[in-house]
Amino acid sequence: MMRDVITEIPLEPVLEIGGVFVGAMAGALAGVRKQLDAFGILVLGWAAGLGGGMLRDVLIGAVPPVGISDWRFIVTAVLGGTVMYFFHPRLERARRFIVVLDAGALALFTVVGTLKGLEYGATPVAAALVGVMTGVGGGVLRDLLTAEVPVVLQDRQLYATPALLGATLTVVLAEQGVLGTAGSVAIVLGVFALRVAALRLRLSVPGPWRGKAGL
Amino acid sequence: MMRDVITEIPLEPVLEIGGVFVGAMAGALAGVRKQLDAFGILVLGWAAGLGGGMLRDVLIGAVPPVGISDWRFIVTAVLGGTVMYFFHPRLERARRFIVVLDAGALALFTVVGTLKGLEYGATPVAAALVGVMTGVGGGVLRDLLTAEVPVVLQDRQLYATPALLGATLTVVLAEQGVLGTAGSVAIVLGVFALRVAALRLRLSVPGPWRGKAGL
Amino acid sequence: MMRDVITEIPLEPVLEIGGVFVGAMAGALAGVRKQLDAFGILVLGWAAGLGGGMLRDVLIGAVPPVGISDWRFIVTAVLGGTVMYFFHPRLERARRFIVVLDAGALALFTVVGTLKGLEYGATPVAAALVGVMTGVGGGVLRDLLTAEVPVVLQDRQLYATPALLGATLTVVLAEQGVLGTAGSVAIVLGVFALRVAALRLRLSVPGPWRGKAGL
Repeated sequence: MMRDVITEIPLEPVLEIGGVFVGAMAGALAGVRKQLDAFGILVLGWAAGLGGGMLRDVLIGAVPPVGISDWRFIVTAVLGGTVMYFFHPRLERARRFIVVLDAGALALFTVVGTLKGLEYGATPVAAALVGVMTGVGGGVLRDLLTAEVPVVLQDRQLYATPALLGATLTVVLAEQGVLGTAGSVAIVLGVFALRVAALRLRLSVPGPWRGKAGL
Repeated sequence: MMRDVITEIPLEPVLEIGGVFVGAMAGALAGVRKQLDAFGILVLGWAAGLGGGMLRDVLIGAVPPVGISDWRFIVTAVLGGTVMYFFHPRLERARRFIVVLDAGALALFTVVGTLKGLEYGATPVAAALVGVMTGVGGGVLRDLLTAEVPVVLQDRQLYATPALLGATLTVVLAEQGVLGTAGSVAIVLGVFALRVAALRLRLSVPGPWRGKAGL
Repeated sequence: MMRDVITEIPLEPVLEIGGVFVGAMAGALAGVRKQLDAFGILVLGWAAGLGGGMLRDVLIGAVPPVGISDWRFIVTAVLGGTVMYFFHPRLERARRFIVVLDAGALALFTVVGTLKGLEYGATPVAAALVGVMTGVGGGVLRDLLTAEVPVVLQDRQLYATPALLGATLTVVLAEQGVLGTAGSVAIVLGVFALRVAALRLRLSVPGPWRGKAGL
């Protein structure tokens, strides 16, 4: 299923596999911090690497979701979790590197997820939202399973916003019939660049309003 | 999809839109209290206003759920969240008013959800449970996303009980072929009245049993 | 639906009903400990007894899931929750007994869930994972609804591992066409025995790695 999408839009599957791997590493790290056992750490990795795609697939009716049916993705997630399980003391120091990789995964998952939504006949609005969920859903599932408020809802970083812009642009261009491979790649790069720029420039989303209306 | 249901059973769509709006306000308020960022506050509003319907749609196979595919509901939820984002200091004082509006949303979502369940061929038992979930699901999703035990499970108020009675009555009358518009409206009003009466009279659900069997 | 599976593979339905009952008791106990109200305690029972099957059904597209559509299972879960609601002070002392019953439910749910996955055309990998989720999903849902990190991810017990072995064996034998009734029963007994042995012998899953790679 996922393979079909990849064949149609020639984003390299190697990039998507990379996204799952990075997401799984971030998930497993959350598990290590919560002192989960080895099984729990790998499950967190699987949930973080593949949770966004599973949420997407359940919402568009593409069941069973690739996160449980495609062994290549599952093996990738388990490998990512295993690497973090054994090397977490060293990898925590490489955190900046992981954050950048994660930006790549966010960009890729968002565009691929949006296109899969369209492919399954979702409305433009639904496809864009499904794309955003594909991008951020793995992190949300990781946080729910560790009984935390999802980071994406509270950390005031520009994380979901680039995904929302990218998904919207993907839908608009696809509806106009002018997306193509070049367009998809450009959007992936744009979301990635926006996310990295937000990190560099410390752009932030405001917290609860404290202005005049509140007086 | 939702529109079809509304056309068939002429409950005013304006009421349902109102339910989404109120639910979104309550969700956004929870986000403000948790100090989420602006994006998180709007997501909480969306989850609280549309989560019950999304849970219903996934459970009956009506995918993608209206909560991501119908732009009118999504815009409504975002508006409700935006209003709460800017005016939360004032609106918290109007809490009693919000609680009453929420009772209306509970009543409406329960009956509409039950009817949609029947429409999709759910068994009578499933349709009633799906109706209750439509009514209370938004609040549950809101609480899960803020890492809280769902209020509906612990606050000892009569909240799910009126919904359960209303959903059961809806199924029974629909199965007998005597529901009609008047019946639907009457049940909505009955659930609303029971919920408001429970608030007024401080009717409560008991906590864990401490009686003789426990000795 | 569930009944069909049971008829095909003559695992006694009485055992599955027993699994739902025991799961519901464990869920209701968690609700009692969290001081939920009576409604919340019964909902926790329902979620714990039927949540694994509901997760399975949503993931394989068997909607509405049996957990909301089959009244026999729902009544069983409510009964289990009710028994725990009234007798929790006594039943907590019988904890060892409940743990053993729960091992039986784990074994049974895993094998039945795996077979239902295959029946709905899931890939072998997906069917095995769906089987494990059927076995452990009720407990995960119970923990999420009480805002706890799922026990199965952190308690270092051999709980999911026997389920994973049993589900894998079920898929392998079913694919070879040599599963049959005897095979199913043998796997259920094997998972049960492994789980009980792990309890007896205090076998454990390791926590986060602290070895050489971490230096």
